[in-house]
Amino acid sequence: MRAFGQHHRTIALGQDGQSVVVVDQTRLPHAFEKRTLRTSAEIAVAIRTMVVRGAPLIGVTAAFGMWLALRQDASDAALREAAHALGETRPTAVNLAWALARVVAEMSPLRPGERAAAAMALAVAMADEDAAACEAIGRHGADLLHRRFDEVGRPATFHVLTHCNAGWLATVDWGTALSPLYRLHDEGLALHVWVDETRPRNQGLLTQWELAQHGVPCTLIVDNAGGLLMQRGRVHACIVGADRIAANGDVCNKVGTYLKALAARDAGIPFLVAAPSSTFDLSVAHGDAIPIEERSPREITLDETIDAYNPAFDVTPARLVDALVTETGTCSATTESIHRHLRRSQEADER
Amino acid sequence: MRAFGQHHRTIALGQDGQSVVVVDQTRLPHAFEKRTLRTSAEIAVAIRTMVVRGAPLIGVTAAFGMWLALRQDASDAALREAAHALGETRPTAVNLAWALARVVAEMSPLRPGERAAAAMALAVAMADEDAAACEAIGRHGADLLHRRFDEVGRPATFHVLTHCNAGWLATVDWGTALSPLYRLHDEGLALHVWVDETRPRNQGLLTQWELAQHGVPCTLIVDNAGGLLMQRGRVHACIVGADRIAANGDVCNKVGTYLKALAARDAGIPFLVAAPSSTFDLSVAHGDAIPIEERSPREITLDETIDAYNPAFDVTPARLVDALVTETGTCSATTESIHRHLRRSQEADER
Repeated sequence: MRAFGQHHRTIALGQDGQSVVVVDQTRLPHAFEKRTLRTSAEIAVAIRTMVVRGAPLIGVTAAFGMWLALRQDASDAALREAAHALGETRPTAVNLAWALARVVAEMSPLRPGERAAAAMALAVAMADEDAAACEAIGRHGADLLHRRFDEVGRPATFHVLTHCNAGWLATVDWGTALSPLYRLHDEGLALHVWVDETRPRNQGLLTQWELAQHGVPCTLIVDNAGGLLMQRGRVHACIVGADRIAANGDVCNKVGTYLKALAARDAGIPFLVAAPSSTFDLSVAHGDAIPIEERSPREITLDETIDAYNPAFDVTPARLVDALVTETGTCSATTESIHRHLRRSQEADER
Repeated sequence: MRAFGQHHRTIALGQDGQSVVVVDQTRLPHAFEKRTLRTSAEIAVAIRTMVVRGAPLIGVTAAFGMWLALRQDASDAALREAAHALGETRPTAVNLAWALARVVAEMSPLRPGERAAAAMALAVAMADEDAAACEAIGRHGADLLHRRFDEVGRPATFHVLTHCNAGWLATVDWGTALSPLYRLHDEGLALHVWVDETRPRNQGLLTQWELAQHGVPCTLIVDNAGGLLMQRGRVHACIVGADRIAANGDVCNKVGTYLKALAARDAGIPFLVAAPSSTFDLSVAHGDAIPIEERSPREITLDETIDAYNPAFDVTPARLVDALVTETGTCSATTESIHRHLRRSQEADER
């Protein structure tokens, strides 16, 4: 998407063909800087320290990390070790495990000598696929939101609330939750976005920055304020991303998402979740079984005398989710609907 | 309550008998400093800039402000003007209007020459009454929480979540929501408090500070985390204060309270509201009619290029409140129960 008038992606192959260039998200919104990563270890640090973040982007970044690992050592053992090391960086997002498993599956049958070049091609392809999937999520999500816009009587301004950052910065391009919003804005709909600050890491500042760069009207609020806004009729729809979706439709996403879903339901406002199909984890029956990453208390306060606890995600029960939006369309947050949806997507893929 | 091993109140008459001494809450938790206020105008600034804060404390502080105003000019016009100026400092807490109305009602019949001395005596009495009321709230709230402790099978640690600061810093002494917690702790119950950070002003840091000073185990969390903790069975009860309670039991309190009440209900956890009787505003039928103070966006971000919106309160519907705790006991959050409760309190007062 556009930043300072130019099109950017969050991740790309370095011009030397031997490195990966990423937007350094720890510097945003204060500075827009790119960083060059040259080894798999550097990639792992970048994921862990949230230089790159967002479930879809983490997956693609890890794929590039596999390539860099295989450039150094393309043996079977190295392939396994690299996947293991990269997989440990963040425990909650399933796209990470999905991306690593895909690279391992596609590289294993090859001879070691062929692996590095093939892994590079695969990582580049996965980046392109992610961008295309996010663009498609934008089309399907925009359809849903258009219907909601009509349902609420085509207001002069259409207000959407989002939590965390599920924009182009969290993906390769377009974003998940924000992709439909970019589309609506580009189509000329008078959109305004309420942006949750999203403590403790303040990813809302990333959302505010990328929306503003693209010209979408938006207002930053503290995480506490969304309930009041929904109570008072100032939100027409909520849309968020996801780090992992269980087989039954429970959605694991940035901590605080669940509280907004409760408020949306209480006020009769649709709560939408947008994510690529790789976010579904059918091996997990419901959300309770998803591991919740606990991060450093020092993300909350630097004062070491204060006892603090910092879980990074929560689970929004499927019953509070009005629709799931993926690159192939939308479905309900139920076991059956998800199964049907993913089967249809797979069949479309195979055609 | 105790800070650095000594007993303190948030507000007291200055030793010179011509001033008011308050704990400067804008300096906490980094520094524990007292500040001397000598005029009604200084009092108004202290309330507006949150040097003093918390609905009960604001009321008592305003009463002292009336005294300082009457020391300078005790005419009828000055009495009215001072009440008006102090009443404008914060719009949401009803204790402020209640305290000012009480001072005006008691001073008006007096000759101007008698007013300053009488206003001083009244302010001191109101401070003592607030401390006594909060201590009584502690007794009644502790009874309720004891019952909950039994109901959940007397766990090794009893976990209570609170939002904002409704401790002794928000009152003259003891606090409202925290008063029962101090009592339980002092009785030897193994209590642990989850403390919401409470953006944007971070009043949770005040709560964390005062609980830690008193030796109560407590853990700071971001406002987003409470839902997850309740989902995962790590909270046994929630208790908060109130800035205004409508006739039907709707509770106006620090923004974000409503989200915690929703999560508590969703998880089957009791949600208690503790406040002195002066917090009820029977002139307001329900919470929708309570004015919500909007504070500066610069409390959220100092970056002037970012559009931000900063409402300070929200309304928790009565249906989500399991009990109201006042200095005379507990009641349900219904019009009838509140009426009966306040009538009984008034009769007890008159005996």
